[in-house]
Amino acid sequence: MNSFGAKLRLTTFGESHGRGVGCVLDGVPAGLEINEKFIQNELDRRKPGTRTGGTSRQEDDRAEILSGAFEGVATGAPIAIFIANTNAKSGDYDELKEIFRPSHADYSWFMKYGVRDHRGGGRSSARESAARVAAGAIAKLILQTIGAKVESGVAAIGGIEGDIYDFAYAVNSPIFALDPNKEAEQIAAITKAKQDRDSIGAKVKIRVTGVPAGLGEPLYDKLDAKLAEALMGVNAVKAVEIGAGAAAARALASKNNDQTSAKGFLSANAGGILGGVSDGGAIDITAHFKPTPSISRPQRTIDIYGEERVIEIKGRHDGCVGVRGAIVCEAMTALVVADMALVNMGSKIEHIKTIYGSERQ
Amino acid sequence: MNSFGAKLRLTTFGESHGRGVGCVLDGVPAGLEINEKFIQNELDRRKPGTRTGGTSRQEDDRAEILSGAFEGVATGAPIAIFIANTNAKSGDYDELKEIFRPSHADYSWFMKYGVRDHRGGGRSSARESAARVAAGAIAKLILQTIGAKVESGVAAIGGIEGDIYDFAYAVNSPIFALDPNKEAEQIAAITKAKQDRDSIGAKVKIRVTGVPAGLGEPLYDKLDAKLAEALMGVNAVKAVEIGAGAAAARALASKNNDQTSAKGFLSANAGGILGGVSDGGAIDITAHFKPTPSISRPQRTIDIYGEERVIEIKGRHDGCVGVRGAIVCEAMTALVVADMALVNMGSKIEHIKTIYGSERQ
Amino acid sequence: MNSFGAKLRLTTFGESHGRGVGCVLDGVPAGLEINEKFIQNELDRRKPGTRTGGTSRQEDDRAEILSGAFEGVATGAPIAIFIANTNAKSGDYDELKEIFRPSHADYSWFMKYGVRDHRGGGRSSARESAARVAAGAIAKLILQTIGAKVESGVAAIGGIEGDIYDFAYAVNSPIFALDPNKEAEQIAAITKAKQDRDSIGAKVKIRVTGVPAGLGEPLYDKLDAKLAEALMGVNAVKAVEIGAGAAAARALASKNNDQTSAKGFLSANAGGILGGVSDGGAIDITAHFKPTPSISRPQRTIDIYGEERVIEIKGRHDGCVGVRGAIVCEAMTALVVADMALVNMGSKIEHIKTIYGSERQ
Amino acid sequence: MNSFGAKLRLTTFGESHGRGVGCVLDGVPAGLEINEKFIQNELDRRKPGTRTGGTSRQEDDRAEILSGAFEGVATGAPIAIFIANTNAKSGDYDELKEIFRPSHADYSWFMKYGVRDHRGGGRSSARESAARVAAGAIAKLILQTIGAKVESGVAAIGGIEGDIYDFAYAVNSPIFALDPNKEAEQIAAITKAKQDRDSIGAKVKIRVTGVPAGLGEPLYDKLDAKLAEALMGVNAVKAVEIGAGAAAARALASKNNDQTSAKGFLSANAGGILGGVSDGGAIDITAHFKPTPSISRPQRTIDIYGEERVIEIKGRHDGCVGVRGAIVCEAMTALVVADMALVNMGSKIEHIKTIYGSERQ
Repeated sequence: MNSFGAKLRLTTFGESHGRGVGCVLDGVPAGLEINEKFIQNELDRRKPGTRTGGTSRQEDDRAEILSGAFEGVATGAPIAIFIANTNAKSGDYDELKEIFRPSHADYSWFMKYGVRDHRGGGRSSARESAARVAAGAIAKLILQTIGAKVESGVAAIGGIEGDIYDFAYAVNSPIFALDPNKEAEQIAAITKAKQDRDSIGAKVKIRVTGVPAGLGEPLYDKLDAKLAEALMGVNAVKAVEIGAGAAAARALASKNNDQTSAKGFLSANAGGILGGVSDGGAIDITAHFKPTPSISRPQRTIDIYGEERVIEIKGRHDGCVGVRGAIVCEAMTALVVADMALVNMGSKIEHIKTIYGSERQ
Repeated sequence: MNSFGAKLRLTTFGESHGRGVGCVLDGVPAGLEINEKFIQNELDRRKPGTRTGGTSRQEDDRAEILSGAFEGVATGAPIAIFIANTNAKSGDYDELKEIFRPSHADYSWFMKYGVRDHRGGGRSSARESAARVAAGAIAKLILQTIGAKVESGVAAIGGIEGDIYDFAYAVNSPIFALDPNKEAEQIAAITKAKQDRDSIGAKVKIRVTGVPAGLGEPLYDKLDAKLAEALMGVNAVKAVEIGAGAAAARALASKNNDQTSAKGFLSANAGGILGGVSDGGAIDITAHFKPTPSISRPQRTIDIYGEERVIEIKGRHDGCVGVRGAIVCEAMTALVVADMALVNMGSKIEHIKTIYGSERQ
Repeated sequence: MNSFGAKLRLTTFGESHGRGVGCVLDGVPAGLEINEKFIQNELDRRKPGTRTGGTSRQEDDRAEILSGAFEGVATGAPIAIFIANTNAKSGDYDELKEIFRPSHADYSWFMKYGVRDHRGGGRSSARESAARVAAGAIAKLILQTIGAKVESGVAAIGGIEGDIYDFAYAVNSPIFALDPNKEAEQIAAITKAKQDRDSIGAKVKIRVTGVPAGLGEPLYDKLDAKLAEALMGVNAVKAVEIGAGAAAARALASKNNDQTSAKGFLSANAGGILGGVSDGGAIDITAHFKPTPSISRPQRTIDIYGEERVIEIKGRHDGCVGVRGAIVCEAMTALVVADMALVNMGSKIEHIKTIYGSERQ
Repeated sequence: MNSFGAKLRLTTFGESHGRGVGCVLDGVPAGLEINEKFIQNELDRRKPGTRTGGTSRQEDDRAEILSGAFEGVATGAPIAIFIANTNAKSGDYDELKEIFRPSHADYSWFMKYGVRDHRGGGRSSARESAARVAAGAIAKLILQTIGAKVESGVAAIGGIEGDIYDFAYAVNSPIFALDPNKEAEQIAAITKAKQDRDSIGAKVKIRVTGVPAGLGEPLYDKLDAKLAEALMGVNAVKAVEIGAGAAAARALASKNNDQTSAKGFLSANAGGILGGVSDGGAIDITAHFKPTPSISRPQRTIDIYGEERVIEIKGRHDGCVGVRGAIVCEAMTALVVADMALVNMGSKIEHIKTIYGSERQ
């Protein structure tokens, strides 16, 4: 359904060309300072219209907090946020009313629901991710209270892959590039794809530092499983790796195992998660984004009557959906880790004695 | 927690060296024939002690159905299955009582719970997957009623990768190899790893055919997200891909998009899932298994007091955990798809009219 | 948390004196006609300012549908509805900032959250029930498609209890009275309580007809258990009965059992639910509302510093919260029954064959 | 489905005349001492064959712990418990194979599932409550660590109601009578009903003391709502009241409100719960049990072909199901309150800082 998380629970709503998109974030601990400026800043990082690789659709993406905060502080009530659509050009989609765009959700969703809001993909549009980013910002505020931090960046555009993961550099890069030496080449690849009426894929890294050991609920809500779910659910993601990821499958244990000294792990192939539970090291996730399926080249497809059609998609689309996607991955990661931090409370009987023992005084 | 699924809901229990492992599968539609022979056969495919790459621990893995079936038919009540441990050699683990095995769940779980059943990893042992396979067998029986089928096989052992995906061949291969031409070389790689007191990783393919279009619940219970969660949660899996997977991130849309003719998709990069919803094509999943972390080479580690130790792990371990892991992936995939088939009922108002309209007569 | 239901899932947000209240209703079957006029009409029935026993706060209670419907039809996406607060008089509450109102949520919520939106009870206000009623209206539209109908009425005001349950009469009664012969006396009791700066309790009946047999999920989501949860969760409800209810505890089985002839049940003590599952008869529920705790008489209480205070509550309050509460009970009942109708699909393997068999053609 | 609870999650399985009944209790905090003797003692309190008002079926009700405890301590893994059926006399039910017993689950469950385990009601039998009691015992052990205690007793048998609620007395009463002065008369009423081939209803009180203020999750997992759900879901319960309950509906606020002095509440009509959240006072619940529907008098009913039949039910049945039901209510109450204690952790940001701040040292 349209909810995610166990104790920190996100519910989103809204469509690309409707009134707007929004979310209800439930389970935010009372007393948390709700820094609206921080939330808006996170939305601005994802905002369309500003970034290489992004769509030219101009949206303010102004977050209105409708509930749950009083005098700047969370009350424990659900926090609802609404982000109005101001620059929807539904007319762009008129000719798509009866046609399924290749590699979009159009066909499969029509088979599921039998009805269709064709305008910009309706509910399936990546525009919904604005709501995820707003909620993710609040998750980050929760994580700050325990000293944990989520960062992201682009490791590769198409086949152009960097060697360096400089998350601090990525913050100010127009494409969130992790490797300063590859940034120009990566930007050029996006530009070329757009010129060719094409789009290009991307590989994104997400890192979480400061996570206490012990987060993740075995055996069916493991931290890595929940991260995989969260990121595979981001539009256009087709693969998720933790730590060494697919490379571990090509390795011997004598190479892949992380041995330990008294000072800590001697390598980090596990990516900060062992047996589905955080081990205190940095959490290392990789998400692979396919190229934006909307391209203006002619493509073969069918319409809702099963007739063959040729389509050239107009509208304003990301040349590389993975760039802005990085920010969405950050948000989803923050939501998962913050949720797990809340859920983990009570895993030891000592937790219970601590909380209720002290409150009983 | 220890449950998985929305309407077809699996709960498992048990430890490697306790009384046994078991499951409760809730939501099995009444009237389904519970073919016990089929369930046992699935367990036999995963069974230790028989297969190249597997542990030499001999377990009967006999499934006892404790509830939920009457005269061979599901009653709608939860189906509980118990698989007793008969060949646990806990003594093998005595010297591990205070030591954390590298790249195992030992350290992170101890940080989480503060107590520990050290015998064979306790709850974190892959032995629990027997319960998954038993439940997965019932999910397969449900899928049979709608003509869907789940298969799996090993695509690569370490770096030795095949070109052919012959799922029928894999069924009878001692390592579930998909490519008959690589099977011998892949077996040799496992054997060599074991001789070297090492272990090796594997890449596994899972395929589901006959899935109706429309399964998967946007936006936070997408079919691909749930599959990623299910498979990343299998012990030792470090990466999951759907369709073209990571390769899509290196591609241009003009190559990666799946165009369509009236006869169907002209390529299958999506892997049978668009916008998180099945598109009627074969579902194509890849899971990457790290090498079994238990090896008998000396490795640096620490104990529960933080002291440095050197460990050489005894016990009976899989030379390549991915081989038997393939069967577990099949089971988890079957559980996800069957669950989604149940959950999807009601996505259209027509479903409701059909069910209650006919029953009202 | 702030969500309710399994497949038809309501999430609400908002406070009495914030921007407004709202809901997200997820799982609405695609293709359902979303009759906005009907939704508004349901809200109008609960609306403050119009009804004997109600508060004099004037609110438009105008429902804005923010998402999930396209051209008047549900798309399968979550339906978000917002109801703005237009007549909040927060000033009325200034002097309550540090005082706990007796028999309100003030004290217990402050102990839970440590922070407080004191204005009109904040999130704990009955104003939130507008969101329930809006969502309940959509649940009723779903139920209409299977011929089921939810009605309610007031059986007693304080000790003044009727003998007749005329649900059709109640629709047009200013206090939703079920017994025309007691209506005047019941209205007088409310009026007197208000004159005495007091308030009075009420007993409400809810009836659902046209429910197919088979709804309710044993053993922990029984239909009666879910109804009890839903109604006990309505503000001010202190007791819930099904069928004969508390009277059954005073009876012998020979009197309480419902015998059956070929034409149906010969009595209806079960209230339409046996073993937690609907039996095809009318579902009969009773909810008992305590008197509105806000009264302007002096009452002893404490403040947030633990100091004793005397309070006389100003503001505009219902003389009998149970009157408008009946409409909220209807809404919650509709949500439960519609949810159970959706959840029940898949209880038989025949359901699955029917849905996927026909779609496969 | 067959699970209950959010963080402390019970899943049960089993039938009256199958292999046995059992449960999986997930979320038990690691480090809790699992006192097996205490668990067995709780089961003995509910055990058939020993108690006035109970069935004469003799069952050992021996609890086998299959998982989740190691060396007497909870490991954080799910605790599975199995209770074998040893005295099932399925032959007693042969003639009921095609007949629906009046006021039992038989008819409605058959309509739902289309198949039937007719032996003793199968899954719908009260025998399943043994699993609830075993799990409830563990919940009580959790509550002990925070100083909370659950007690119960019988307030009325049929119309014979006591004035005194002496929970300590009830422990040793053969019918768990709360009022020593009425006990003999109440026992006589049960005996007479049995002699008359009839059965009788009962009113049960449950009290929880030592509960910290702040438990309960507004707005849809309120403590009173969850208690109502839990108790209405117990076999034969037809009404649930909190605090003053139905009497509050007949009262004026000036009487029903609980005023407060610096020493605490001056009355207890709320029953320890305000706005769905515990207020630190004793929690006071009333459950009303209908008479056991199985009686050996001739009753009119129908069979699975819709034909009229007359039935005289044989087998061994409780003369007053409410007596043993009190113990089941205790167990369900303990599960709800312990779950809420776990869920509440994280309601304040201070909780999070406390837990992770101290562990980070």
